[in-house]
Amino acid sequence: MTVKAQRLLEEADVVLHDKLPGPEILGQIPEEKREDVGKRAGGEWTPQEYTNKRLVELAREGKTVVRLKGGDPFVFGRGGEEAEHLASEGIPFEVVPGITSAIGGPAVAGIPVTHRDHASSVSFVTGHEDPTKEESAVNWEALAATGGTIVVLMGVGKLPDYTKALRSAGMNPETPVALVERATWPNMRVATGNLEDIVDVRDEYDIEPPAITVIGEVAGTRERVLEFLRNESESETEPESQTGTER
Amino acid sequence: MTVKAQRLLEEADVVLHDKLPGPEILGQIPEEKREDVGKRAGGEWTPQEYTNKRLVELAREGKTVVRLKGGDPFVFGRGGEEAEHLASEGIPFEVVPGITSAIGGPAVAGIPVTHRDHASSVSFVTGHEDPTKEESAVNWEALAATGGTIVVLMGVGKLPDYTKALRSAGMNPETPVALVERATWPNMRVATGNLEDIVDVRDEYDIEPPAITVIGEVAGTRERVLEFLRNESESETEPESQTGTER
Ligand SMILES: C[S@@+](CC[C@H](N)C(=O)[O-])C[C@H]1O[C@@H](n2cnc3c(N)ncnc32)[C@H](O)[C@@H]1O
Ligand SMILES: C[S@@+](CC[C@H](N)C(=O)[O-])C[C@H]1O[C@@H](n2cnc3c(N)ncnc32)[C@H](O)[C@@H]1O
Repeated sequence: MTVKAQRLLEEADVVLHDKLPGPEILGQIPEEKREDVGKRAGGEWTPQEYTNKRLVELAREGKTVVRLKGGDPFVFGRGGEEAEHLASEGIPFEVVPGITSAIGGPAVAGIPVTHRDHASSVSFVTGHEDPTKEESAVNWEALAATGGTIVVLMGVGKLPDYTKALRSAGMNPETPVALVERATWPNMRVATGNLEDIVDVRDEYDIEPPAITVIGEVAGTRERVLEFLRNESESETEPESQTGTER
Repeated sequence: MTVKAQRLLEEADVVLHDKLPGPEILGQIPEEKREDVGKRAGGEWTPQEYTNKRLVELAREGKTVVRLKGGDPFVFGRGGEEAEHLASEGIPFEVVPGITSAIGGPAVAGIPVTHRDHASSVSFVTGHEDPTKEESAVNWEALAATGGTIVVLMGVGKLPDYTKALRSAGMNPETPVALVERATWPNMRVATGNLEDIVDVRDEYDIEPPAITVIGEVAGTRERVLEFLRNESESETEPESQTGTER
């Protein structure tokens, strides 16, 4: 969390949040300030319209409101929609960037998303397309052709589909792939494989959302640095498990 | 800056840094702890080999060393190379992610890099390829074909080349483009245009590095939210200038 975000959380009257900020961050916010607009008990999600309305309502009551998201609000976080809604209702707001799981997740696993020698670009993409869209919004063939790193968010369930699409697009089946589950949380896990066997690895270790899929030569960095890579939280809890095929 | 980075800077014996963290952050570090490994007075850069060697040397002296980079160390930051070097020398290290200018820069300008309606992916790419590479490492045609947002780092000088390449690859010349110069620094500026006229905009306002180029429909969000977008630092200094063509 950033110093600025921490200060704003302290100053806020109300914090609208979902589950993704993780237990450590949510635990710091006094219960009476929190309003959960994430997944409900029944498994349903709070509709975006409700969150939009609630933000405006609270602001009009004169409250200082923080809309807390996991990672960065503008990386698959619907922050753009909320910002446009606030602007259309005449409510002033500020955007405070955060560490996106798309970069921080790989990083704590020892994986740089770009690398001077093997990745001149990195693309973040959703693995779970909006099903209301008529045609596929993600062009996996083009992503494969960039030659850069591909980081998939919301990509545990459809892993078989897009790894197949990338192989069909000509990507080497031996391209390293890493799955980073619950990055930076106390029970983080990392599983590694390649574009051919990663689905089996996922199944064997029962990797579940939230997780990040990193596809590209950079994923191979992990094995070269792992022995000397430290994560502070490890010392406080059990060590992060290293799973998956040896590379 | 993150809470963790701030604490580690306080605990460090030595901080190896360049100029990109910005005046606000560098000003917080006591002079006697700082070692500049960025651009030298004569305009030359400290070779990466020197930085690598110095990190190992200091660690072997028993010092707690922070290698401070602008933005995120693993996004065009050569953090991967430094991590591999440390591992090869047997020096334990931790990676602490930061807010990359590729996300934070657009964000403070009111631009979400992804958007449910117009961008299912975002690609970060270097506009300044390693000239020692034999063939072009960046496939602009593939990036255009992703249909997602393109964020170019180190892309002020070669703006004419890659905007042309993207147009040749079939991207609509009216695609919104924003240049975010010195994002989050006190003298930040934002200039907007489209894939056709942005080079003229750059020249008219004399946009210089460091700057981020954002290419895609999301860049158009800025005009829809600008009136209600606040940046805390503005109140302390002069307001951020809004330049460029009206969209
Ligand atoms: C709706 S997106 C939100 C992303 C968020 N705005 C960000 O910048 O990290 C949710 C996806 O983010 C990823 N994610 C979020 N937190 C994560 C974590 N702690 N570890 C691994 N992946 C995470 C997962 O891919 C998850 O499916
Ligand atoms: C060598 S890269 C380092 C990127 C850095 N690791 C990051 O994550 O932001 C340098 C480039 O980052 C971008 N950059 C860094 N700081 C910036 C800032 N304050 N405003 C705009 N662009 C910035 C510029 O494109 C610059 O050419």
